[in-house]
Amino acid sequence: MSDRNLTLMTDLYELTMMQGYFKEKTNQTAVFDVFYRTNPCGNGYAVMAGLEQVIDYIKNLHFGEKEIDYLRSTGLFEEDFLGYLRDFRFTGDIFAIPEGTVIFPREPLVKVVAPIMEAQLVETSILNIINHQCLIATKTARVVHAARGDGIMEFGLRRAQGPDAGIYGARAAMIGGCIGTSNVLAGQMFDVPVKGTHAHSWIMSFPDELTAFRTYAKLYPTACILLVDTYDTLRSGVPNAITVFNEMKAAGIPLNGYGIRLDSGDLAYLSKKAKEMLDEAGFSDAVISASSDLDEDLINSLKTQGAAINSWGVGTNMITSSGCPAFGGVYKLVALKDKDSGEFIPKIKLSENTEKVTNPGNKTVYRIYGADTGKMIADLIALVDESYSSDQPLLLFDPIDTWKKTHLAPGTYTIRELPAQIFKQGKCVYESPSVMDIRSYCMQELGTLWDEAKRLINPHRAHIDLSAKLHAMKNSLLESVDNMTHHQGR
Amino acid sequence: MSDRNLTLMTDLYELTMMQGYFKEKTNQTAVFDVFYRTNPCGNGYAVMAGLEQVIDYIKNLHFGEKEIDYLRSTGLFEEDFLGYLRDFRFTGDIFAIPEGTVIFPREPLVKVVAPIMEAQLVETSILNIINHQCLIATKTARVVHAARGDGIMEFGLRRAQGPDAGIYGARAAMIGGCIGTSNVLAGQMFDVPVKGTHAHSWIMSFPDELTAFRTYAKLYPTACILLVDTYDTLRSGVPNAITVFNEMKAAGIPLNGYGIRLDSGDLAYLSKKAKEMLDEAGFSDAVISASSDLDEDLINSLKTQGAAINSWGVGTNMITSSGCPAFGGVYKLVALKDKDSGEFIPKIKLSENTEKVTNPGNKTVYRIYGADTGKMIADLIALVDESYSSDQPLLLFDPIDTWKKTHLAPGTYTIRELPAQIFKQGKCVYESPSVMDIRSYCMQELGTLWDEAKRLINPHRAHIDLSAKLHAMKNSLLESVDNMTHHQGR
Repeated sequence: MSDRNLTLMTDLYELTMMQGYFKEKTNQTAVFDVFYRTNPCGNGYAVMAGLEQVIDYIKNLHFGEKEIDYLRSTGLFEEDFLGYLRDFRFTGDIFAIPEGTVIFPREPLVKVVAPIMEAQLVETSILNIINHQCLIATKTARVVHAARGDGIMEFGLRRAQGPDAGIYGARAAMIGGCIGTSNVLAGQMFDVPVKGTHAHSWIMSFPDELTAFRTYAKLYPTACILLVDTYDTLRSGVPNAITVFNEMKAAGIPLNGYGIRLDSGDLAYLSKKAKEMLDEAGFSDAVISASSDLDEDLINSLKTQGAAINSWGVGTNMITSSGCPAFGGVYKLVALKDKDSGEFIPKIKLSENTEKVTNPGNKTVYRIYGADTGKMIADLIALVDESYSSDQPLLLFDPIDTWKKTHLAPGTYTIRELPAQIFKQGKCVYESPSVMDIRSYCMQELGTLWDEAKRLINPHRAHIDLSAKLHAMKNSLLESVDNMTHHQGR
Repeated sequence: MSDRNLTLMTDLYELTMMQGYFKEKTNQTAVFDVFYRTNPCGNGYAVMAGLEQVIDYIKNLHFGEKEIDYLRSTGLFEEDFLGYLRDFRFTGDIFAIPEGTVIFPREPLVKVVAPIMEAQLVETSILNIINHQCLIATKTARVVHAARGDGIMEFGLRRAQGPDAGIYGARAAMIGGCIGTSNVLAGQMFDVPVKGTHAHSWIMSFPDELTAFRTYAKLYPTACILLVDTYDTLRSGVPNAITVFNEMKAAGIPLNGYGIRLDSGDLAYLSKKAKEMLDEAGFSDAVISASSDLDEDLINSLKTQGAAINSWGVGTNMITSSGCPAFGGVYKLVALKDKDSGEFIPKIKLSENTEKVTNPGNKTVYRIYGADTGKMIADLIALVDESYSSDQPLLLFDPIDTWKKTHLAPGTYTIRELPAQIFKQGKCVYESPSVMDIRSYCMQELGTLWDEAKRLINPHRAHIDLSAKLHAMKNSLLESVDNMTHHQGR
């Protein structure tokens, strides 16, 4: 993304508001939080992803002459403002939870502290990037969980919502736990394993299936996976594959990572029958891989049915997060710096729905683990000027049902702050790890959740609490509101 | 897309198969069809889109040193093949149905006729681009239909699946009938109208709502749409908006395209109440626009409830085609040129499911209209060496229930071939119309469908027939198969 100018990839209103602040000379420093309200797909958590692309985007922000000319052509912008854009660069601070971290609703995932004109411009692209990659990383974590230790390959490029959805979707899928992708460009860009064998067209372009298999095995003797469903899986595909494996064995070719791929039909039945045939022929270590409109529910069902599949290619449903194709990240103003005092004045966005009222103020988030188990106990959203230490007693309480309390004694828990500083006065101060390192960190993060928090249906809901100070501040802001309609006036 | 090298945006197996054909010296000319099997979202048709980006992709195909080096690093490819890639360019023919055309299941949307190594490489990217844009254009046509003549604005960038999904999704949404997009980059790239006003953060950054409205109206007196739900829609937002409209009127500022935007709450109730208040204040021509997780079903429901909304901003659900986030386009081998005879030998892909058996051969598609109504009667998929003319009688029959027949007398119908030639021996011979021209053509195309074919639920299913010659060829290929399992052998 680093060589594309995505500066105009923003909603028009960001630019009209920017010009408004420019004209009014009210470019106060603002704090905006990116957060989401509901985990996708009924999951118990989400996975943070997309930060590296946000960094590229911010670094590359600039209005060239083409962009200025286009904006002028809309008739909405005046020369003084266009002149300001010509010299525009991002000068603010950004804090973010690192990629691969397990995240929860209402937590500030990305916090932008910048003059409001700058903070407003970047809203749309930050949301676009974070919403997309968090969605796919989270969906993938579900699919990987369903496969109970089997490898998942990302095969979705042809059904992704455009090139970037395929490319950055593959990146997010690797973070969420895939072992490889079919997408060669993603392999090149992110240094992740690429996987694949052949299509039905390969088989059909030869006079017969056996010749197609033989030719493929001659060319690619290592990790030779043969697609067996072009004509008839059990009468033709599997017997021909066994013939070729026997020929390879006879020729002294080592059989490593070899096997078959099923791409249609009743995968439970066909995999069990194929397994019997392969076992009988002495190929009990053959890989049986499957691909065919799979998702976490189908994989879970096939595992429960005892399907003899040990490798999965997942396409459409993972790359589009079918069933929940959007991650509802929002970008909300939470504080404005007072010009005179230099203090951040907290801002709150009301809603008839209590759950949709924003958490005001300049905040951070801490994660609390059991000292004995290493498992997550709760997250604590707090103001930046608070400090916490595991040698102090800690009181946690539910932000809605405040009578639900947990007291943690010193030494029984550990605590860490999740966000890191990414930009400082417009300069990037963070280096993104490699995708494979983010993936390892994500697997470790998932290990800090109890199994009950990871199950696919009705997972345990994590405790995401507010600090006492933040809770009190939020309530006093709410009490100060007196023009909120309590009942619809009918 | 034209300045990005997407040559590696392909599945790994395309490249391993290419190397296989290279090593085997079997680079026969092949015919591949792009088609889909089911209309998305239960719709009665789909809308063709994405061709311009396919053209850019094909024109720009090349393996530079970076791409070659990466492929070498995988350890899968040998130097002779990498040398071939260094000089690679696409040399084949491509035929396609123009963008904006109404399309139906099983029709060849794009046909690639090229040496199989080239035809195989381009499979994944062609599918990615066509699948994405057809999906969003089709979803948009549904949303536009539901709005019964009101304008739909595309507002989905922040929830799109990555940058391209936002950019090319906006393009497809314009083709499908939107009147504008909030996406400034899409506006610049495709010369389509951009729209937008301000966000809640604008209102919250001022001491009070009225000051925020006044400031906005001063800056943008034309098409001044005020967002009224930040604090309390009916007690605060609408009265403050009316105050500002009165002030504008008093100051002699012409009120054009002015109005309010509702972004939360009960849109049916709030819009009717707001309309009453605006009418009473003498602003009965004010626009009442709405945005809030809308889709075609919600818009239809609001219209049915008599909501006083006449302008709609649709985001997440349109830009992701929520409910059906993938268009199932596939790319299938349908013929191979015999090296000796130079004839195309038809190829068929079997499936236990009759509906999934491919249509073999080098084909095209005709659309037949009633001469009196101008409405579509049926489509006819035929072989390229057949010819049709409306001064001949025409017999149409259902490809499954062949006893269902229609005889068309000469002069009672018109017929036109849908695909155009796009590439000829590797050279582009087609000029893409502008997006707004494609949009106009699409609106005209939708006019050739009966209302029953456009309704959102249980639409009339169009007749997509095979020519007698194609039907006979397909059956004789099917009869020649003798190793297809008729019953699962349990």
